[in-house]
Amino acid sequence: MILYNAHIVSHSIELERGYVEIEEGKISRITKGFPNIVAGTDIDCEGAYIFPGFVDTHIHGGNGVDTMDADEKAFKILCDYEYSHGVTTFFPTTVTASFERTMNVLKVLKELKDKEGFENIGGVHLEGPFLDRKKVGAQNPSFVSSLDEDELRRWFSLKIVKSITYALAADPENRIPVLCEEYGVKPSIGHSDATFEEFERCYALGVRHLTHFCNGMSGLHHRHVGLVGAGLLYDDVYVEIIADRVHLNDQMLRLIAKVKEPSRVIFITDAIRASGMKDGEYELGGLKVRVVKGEARLSDGTLAGSTLTMEKAVRNYNDVTKLPLRTCVDAATYNPAEFYGLKNIGDIRVGMQADLVICDAQTLKVLKTIKRGNIVFQWIDGVP
Amino acid sequence: MILYNAHIVSHSIELERGYVEIEEGKISRITKGFPNIVAGTDIDCEGAYIFPGFVDTHIHGGNGVDTMDADEKAFKILCDYEYSHGVTTFFPTTVTASFERTMNVLKVLKELKDKEGFENIGGVHLEGPFLDRKKVGAQNPSFVSSLDEDELRRWFSLKIVKSITYALAADPENRIPVLCEEYGVKPSIGHSDATFEEFERCYALGVRHLTHFCNGMSGLHHRHVGLVGAGLLYDDVYVEIIADRVHLNDQMLRLIAKVKEPSRVIFITDAIRASGMKDGEYELGGLKVRVVKGEARLSDGTLAGSTLTMEKAVRNYNDVTKLPLRTCVDAATYNPAEFYGLKNIGDIRVGMQADLVICDAQTLKVLKTIKRGNIVFQWIDGVP
Repeated sequence: MILYNAHIVSHSIELERGYVEIEEGKISRITKGFPNIVAGTDIDCEGAYIFPGFVDTHIHGGNGVDTMDADEKAFKILCDYEYSHGVTTFFPTTVTASFERTMNVLKVLKELKDKEGFENIGGVHLEGPFLDRKKVGAQNPSFVSSLDEDELRRWFSLKIVKSITYALAADPENRIPVLCEEYGVKPSIGHSDATFEEFERCYALGVRHLTHFCNGMSGLHHRHVGLVGAGLLYDDVYVEIIADRVHLNDQMLRLIAKVKEPSRVIFITDAIRASGMKDGEYELGGLKVRVVKGEARLSDGTLAGSTLTMEKAVRNYNDVTKLPLRTCVDAATYNPAEFYGLKNIGDIRVGMQADLVICDAQTLKVLKTIKRGNIVFQWIDGVP
Repeated sequence: MILYNAHIVSHSIELERGYVEIEEGKISRITKGFPNIVAGTDIDCEGAYIFPGFVDTHIHGGNGVDTMDADEKAFKILCDYEYSHGVTTFFPTTVTASFERTMNVLKVLKELKDKEGFENIGGVHLEGPFLDRKKVGAQNPSFVSSLDEDELRRWFSLKIVKSITYALAADPENRIPVLCEEYGVKPSIGHSDATFEEFERCYALGVRHLTHFCNGMSGLHHRHVGLVGAGLLYDDVYVEIIADRVHLNDQMLRLIAKVKEPSRVIFITDAIRASGMKDGEYELGGLKVRVVKGEARLSDGTLAGSTLTMEKAVRNYNDVTKLPLRTCVDAATYNPAEFYGLKNIGDIRVGMQADLVICDAQTLKVLKTIKRGNIVFQWIDGVP
């Protein structure tokens, strides 16, 4: 299959008029200009962008379903919803819950991963339950707990967990980075009121990631720079960004763009069940969430995840920061793939897995999504 | 007079072994190597640094005296104290007080300026009284007021005021930048809880300066980035920095060094009467200040100016940020001279006024201060 008449934008290559050839689920050729012959199965992109498929490493749910539903049908809906927004790899993300409930989610996902129709499940992100009550955000406080090493080992042993968000307050001995190292999981600090100096203890153990940067963490004060200061100061620390222009305002996005190494910014949606749905009342981890104009909040006004989609995140960041589109695309593709060591995805290079998304050249609306060379979503006028 | 065997560091030139020749109060030659002949009046710097004389545009007092004392003897003590710390130009800075009291300070200074022994008085910085009660800091709240345009015109008419710190809250119609333009005074936002958007209204009127950046102003939140956000985002806005490692901690200094254009950083001491004195009780604008280990605070713990000196500011910033010494020296010399349009000072160039400071190569201790070619201070073992 050849995708031609396209504007290819990825970490390794940008071609204004080019084409991508796919053979056996892999990218076999990337060339400037037009192919000599095109077959009926080839796709005229009509000047649209081709990006690597998006990678969303922090997403709870969408289209009415949630990771915690732990149900095959729900995950099928979620996988398809993700494809419809160009996401060819995602980490279903848990919320703080009982040991058994989390275990059940992991078992169901372990079963489904790589099954036909679920190929975009790339692993699991555990958000909690080892968090700081002071920065609980929209996590259910009833299940926030201190580290139980045995429980964590049992979760990790299933070999489906890719990352865990934790707070030093719940793990004062800082065991989690050590366990993560043992099981090949990436630790990330989040929902944490840690000081800059406390963060440095985690940094010394290899922690290089902050969950939804600025949200649910100790802010910047000029005599206590906190986790926000740590994210801004340490060039090699990756920061998750919810670029919905709600969680962080435009000036903050600009400041991040100004200060952070672009290669260390990772877009996430942190999307919940309400994403892709109408405004109204929804549930998150047993808490009631009200969505008004796409903003999801608890009754006290606390932001409770988002209704963001990845193509929108790329567009927002590009609009607000004026960083090159290629840099913004990296934050949704290459950067997370690099951080999580996801080989063969996140870029457009010969030999890589053909995970691609075709987006409208003006709006970035997702027109087609391709997973391992197969079209898994296409937008048809008015009927997405 | 020739100053030889020196390490010359200034905005325009850095020479590791060089000499500076002074004729009729001006720099007449700057050369690498050693002079052919030296006279008895010439000075062997023995490898010490020569910097441009320091410029401190925000300093209340020192050595037991304060600008508000409005007394010739007090100002003589202050001028000499400043010389002893290498400051060849300073703006005695008022605190919030009654109209008459401020007027009196200005009249006394108008009289003294350029009188023999007072040559380092470069103009006045009015800190208040048009400030925001929400960010009053160690200013006496009894005298904080809304703009009285007539009063301000009468102060400005004396042509001694160089800068004014104000808050939009006290001047909602934003008249101060307009009046500043008319009288050639530099407006600066400080002691202000203004939002980023409010700052932009001032910016549109030409305001490019923030008083003691981060201290006494709206902090950075990821959805309300405030004046701290404005200072970090706008490359062309100058920020005053109190580099005593108390007002801003080391991480914050590093973050500023990382984010700000170096040419837009201006060191100030914000020193008070207690600077150069022993720990104990002092007065600032009618408020009681307690100094412990050099930190000056009100009884509620609010920082109340500093006991910092300029050579220490240069050293601290250099130590903490690892920026080149030359960049740090600029922040104490060239940058304020540029911002305030002080011609002929702040740099070492042929034809400029010979305002120089000789500092120990290891500690930066001030060894000699030269104002318009005259030695106005020299350090003699144990008897500064």
